[in-house]
Amino acid sequence: MITLTTDFGIKGPYVGEMKGAILAINPEAKIVDVTHSITRHSIIEGSFVMEQIVKYFPPDTIHVGVIDPGVGTERRAIIIEGTQFLVLPDNGLATLPLKWIKPKAAYEIDLRKIETIIGRKISSTFHGRDVFGPAGALLSLGYEPSKLGKEIDLEEIIKLDLKPKKLEDSWLLRVIYIDDFGNVILNLENYERPKYVEILGRKIPYIDTYGKVKPGELLSLPGSHDYLEIAVNQGSAADVLGLKVGDEVKVKLLYGEG
Amino acid sequence: MITLTTDFGIKGPYVGEMKGAILAINPEAKIVDVTHSITRHSIIEGSFVMEQIVKYFPPDTIHVGVIDPGVGTERRAIIIEGTQFLVLPDNGLATLPLKWIKPKAAYEIDLRKIETIIGRKISSTFHGRDVFGPAGALLSLGYEPSKLGKEIDLEEIIKLDLKPKKLEDSWLLRVIYIDDFGNVILNLENYERPKYVEILGRKIPYIDTYGKVKPGELLSLPGSHDYLEIAVNQGSAADVLGLKVGDEVKVKLLYGEG
Amino acid sequence: MITLTTDFGIKGPYVGEMKGAILAINPEAKIVDVTHSITRHSIIEGSFVMEQIVKYFPPDTIHVGVIDPGVGTERRAIIIEGTQFLVLPDNGLATLPLKWIKPKAAYEIDLRKIETIIGRKISSTFHGRDVFGPAGALLSLGYEPSKLGKEIDLEEIIKLDLKPKKLEDSWLLRVIYIDDFGNVILNLENYERPKYVEILGRKIPYIDTYGKVKPGELLSLPGSHDYLEIAVNQGSAADVLGLKVGDEVKVKLLYGEG
Repeated sequence: MITLTTDFGIKGPYVGEMKGAILAINPEAKIVDVTHSITRHSIIEGSFVMEQIVKYFPPDTIHVGVIDPGVGTERRAIIIEGTQFLVLPDNGLATLPLKWIKPKAAYEIDLRKIETIIGRKISSTFHGRDVFGPAGALLSLGYEPSKLGKEIDLEEIIKLDLKPKKLEDSWLLRVIYIDDFGNVILNLENYERPKYVEILGRKIPYIDTYGKVKPGELLSLPGSHDYLEIAVNQGSAADVLGLKVGDEVKVKLLYGEG
Repeated sequence: MITLTTDFGIKGPYVGEMKGAILAINPEAKIVDVTHSITRHSIIEGSFVMEQIVKYFPPDTIHVGVIDPGVGTERRAIIIEGTQFLVLPDNGLATLPLKWIKPKAAYEIDLRKIETIIGRKISSTFHGRDVFGPAGALLSLGYEPSKLGKEIDLEEIIKLDLKPKKLEDSWLLRVIYIDDFGNVILNLENYERPKYVEILGRKIPYIDTYGKVKPGELLSLPGSHDYLEIAVNQGSAADVLGLKVGDEVKVKLLYGEG
Repeated sequence: MITLTTDFGIKGPYVGEMKGAILAINPEAKIVDVTHSITRHSIIEGSFVMEQIVKYFPPDTIHVGVIDPGVGTERRAIIIEGTQFLVLPDNGLATLPLKWIKPKAAYEIDLRKIETIIGRKISSTFHGRDVFGPAGALLSLGYEPSKLGKEIDLEEIIKLDLKPKKLEDSWLLRVIYIDDFGNVILNLENYERPKYVEILGRKIPYIDTYGKVKPGELLSLPGSHDYLEIAVNQGSAADVLGLKVGDEVKVKLLYGEG
């Protein structure tokens, strides 16, 4: 089972080529499209989406992620082995999914080895098709990751700074995802459930479902991803608050009626 | 075989999470994406799309539909068993596909039973991943639907009013779908083929293929869905007529040259 | 293994209906979505995308392509048999993928035979579901293509004029594809690598990766498809140059510093 998460878009040949490259190596591979519509080059968004996926797929799933603005430069192509596999560029994309797979080893993919196995030259612009897809396909055939490159230090894998920052009486948070509905997801987990959330000068109720405020009104809620989420019933919180992925914002959790 | 029809959009983790939740229960499940781009919360559009799918899939297919504006409220999650299965919220979504599956029983999904089987808590905002997907996966493993909830009365399933209304010399019809090309599909089936169709003050020919009028001209035709369809050759009938899904419109079928 | 390349869009029932029609004939078929977002009626774009796919899929793959502005008219529905199969309308769509499959025979699909086998009437507007999908499914079951229609002359298959034209000191090229990122792909392959490319009065460097020019700057490069490609680092070359698929443009390859 191989999942695909990319920013290739849905209209061109890119997704199909990557699938062809995988199926040419392992015609029995079960390919699962996660999304090909990650905002172009948005590593934070890709990392968030891959984290959510990893939480629900069964053990040994191979997750191929290609959000790769540095393709053709020196950035490494890596495999991380744990309860599931991550196959992706070493550019921070692994930051969030890594938390869930109990990583036990990492490998830098050796492009020459991939070229030898697949019998064709690797392009400098499309490693989804030529490196990450084939590496995922080889893992799905049972190849040991050590056959695809040398082991590297897990600690050296690049990680984005996506930890929430505690201020005196509030948090400095980052927007890690905005969904199609405009719901804003912030990087705060495992917090004590407040009565209200204060964000950008607005005090909004913290409740558990959209339908409990009027259409057009802001609410905060646990969300389906455990992260703190800001929403507007039948509207877009991102538009109302003027927020985009990567933005930092000060947030206060209020526990009294105050 | 499990088909998925949702309004989750194609860019986020939602579709991938639902697939993961299904494959964690049944790794052998064959998942078929129908669409994840139903207009948000448009139950009519979702019902139309599910109807078309049901007509072409083989017996025993499990169709999971999630257009669910009432998630987290009291609306029921249901399974309808017939020649194929429908797994969806009880909000009218079943109205049109129901016509094709010779329904013989319906069940209200018991969320506590699903929680027990999947071993995790059901969120209040994402029943596609936590209820409908898992229920479909369990059916695909051969679970009896009665194991997933109590039987309910088929007559009590919520149905939308999508029957065409006969007026003195015309029909009051509803737009049940507008496709990507702007073709307008109306809820009239099994009518006698007219020579012309009168709609919003325009008299347009009823013919069998787009290419038989000039680019930019209106035509009506049987469509590929048996419903009466209004189109513009190489253009958008919805734009030309100013119609959207759910609109009511008076339509006259003309059998003479009149 | 059956791939699907269409212009049906992702929001309606069309893709799902075609998949249902395939799976009703062969429930074991492995369906691979390439894209359903080919620009409506763009045969050139569809032909380019199918070419790229064919290069990477394993032998015997069945590629179903439906970009079919002439549906319902006299255009033929055909099967081309080679190292892989093409199943598509005879409207030029085969032009580019044909180069890669060592074609050895072609057949005109007999709609009456398909009707007999699938046991339902073929609509005049949706041959993806009623003709091309079922024909692909029957091939995947091992049907001989000669059972689905009479053999036709390979030379008579309609081909688009997509050969680059040599002028005195330059080329007259056509835009055969513009990807989601605005990269412009021109119909020139197997050329000697230049130092610069002159296009529309601009002299731009020919280098091998996007990251080597500043954001916003034009570059030309081999691309991942072997065709000459014009790009803008983190921008859209199509917008900067005002080009669209099908446009002809004069291009000079410069080998000196000149």
